[in-house]
Amino acid sequence: MPETPPPAGTGAASYEPTERTVPSRSRQRASYDKETVHSILDAAYLCHLGFVRDEAPVVLPTLFGRIGERLYVHGSTGSRPLREAGAADPGLSVCLTVTHVDGLVLARSAFHHSMNYRSVVVHGIARAVTDPQERRVALDAIVDQAVPGRSKDSRPADAKELAATAVIRLDLDEVSAKIRTGGPDDEPEDLSLPYWAGVVPVARAYGTPVPSDDLDPAVQVPGYLRAL
Amino acid sequence: MPETPPPAGTGAASYEPTERTVPSRSRQRASYDKETVHSILDAAYLCHLGFVRDEAPVVLPTLFGRIGERLYVHGSTGSRPLREAGAADPGLSVCLTVTHVDGLVLARSAFHHSMNYRSVVVHGIARAVTDPQERRVALDAIVDQAVPGRSKDSRPADAKELAATAVIRLDLDEVSAKIRTGGPDDEPEDLSLPYWAGVVPVARAYGTPVPSDDLDPAVQVPGYLRAL
Repeated sequence: MPETPPPAGTGAASYEPTERTVPSRSRQRASYDKETVHSILDAAYLCHLGFVRDEAPVVLPTLFGRIGERLYVHGSTGSRPLREAGAADPGLSVCLTVTHVDGLVLARSAFHHSMNYRSVVVHGIARAVTDPQERRVALDAIVDQAVPGRSKDSRPADAKELAATAVIRLDLDEVSAKIRTGGPDDEPEDLSLPYWAGVVPVARAYGTPVPSDDLDPAVQVPGYLRAL
Repeated sequence: MPETPPPAGTGAASYEPTERTVPSRSRQRASYDKETVHSILDAAYLCHLGFVRDEAPVVLPTLFGRIGERLYVHGSTGSRPLREAGAADPGLSVCLTVTHVDGLVLARSAFHHSMNYRSVVVHGIARAVTDPQERRVALDAIVDQAVPGRSKDSRPADAKELAATAVIRLDLDEVSAKIRTGGPDDEPEDLSLPYWAGVVPVARAYGTPVPSDDLDPAVQVPGYLRAL
């Protein structure tokens, strides 16, 4: 029995490839599977957000949060991209990229050196979020993206803080993941060369939480931090 | 005796700030000091390269190498940004960003949550490198940026591989670093709230090198890998 593809749209299992989400090389590394994309995004909290100012590209590191098929980025209302996303109609054209390095791939030949990685690239229009409830939920999501469970264990933003914070939203629509795994792809004639070949694993490591100098010693390290 | 500032230009100790390298917020975190910028770049091998295609931003993760005041990025001659940098006159307008996350900063208030980080943002025109000697040195630098000492311990690229590789150069000229360190900046009235506050350190960790299945067991793990 042939597999029935899910219908396109909200319920689809994968994003529709577009001209700009099909890579110009290493196409076999590309994936449009939603679960794959979500898992790469959810393992991260830092993204690199690109936008265009005066016809030139700008790439800034920033925190993000995901809720379903939407990504949120926040910042000061004084920050340029957030201001521009709010002022522009329909919004600000952005590219949001998330990358995990999983390994350094050392081949016998300099040419075949590579990197094992998982990345997601999202293209789209970032729009200012004005609905108060969506803003609150988005800000919680950004805090929880880095430290799951933290938003409930902190003082929520008050009216003044909310007014000073801009939130923008980017829908997951034009999206691709790219993944490289495995060892080096050396040329057959290079296999006997006397150079070490293989992979050096790279991972993110968390250290022991360092309490603030002014923290009441009675406040214990919460479980969600030990879980990191 | 007043300090004499170094002359502007090649010998200067810092980059000249420009309209786009002065951040719109948190200016006290910005630095134009060359040593600071170099040390942040040299602790990294991955950058996020932004450019503009069809008036929209594109941000891609890629390896880079630094030689003095020049950064190099390489890729397939078939890759779009590298092709465009070669075809465009005077080159391709890019923004190259490097970010290290050093810690998650947890404040009592959701609003004051932050990240300790070191980042460098480079603006400029990327130009194709055509000089064969500069291309070779640049490719070595990219390999050595990730694994110092590795380029000398691998087979150099042959003529065919060199012909398949595009190299672009970006001069360090319009550059800034941004650094956040320290604990949370809570409001005085929040200090007695019962929430944990402090910093969770984040670092890059290398695992034990995993040799290729087809590696001659007589080839030992080289010292430059143990040094990682």
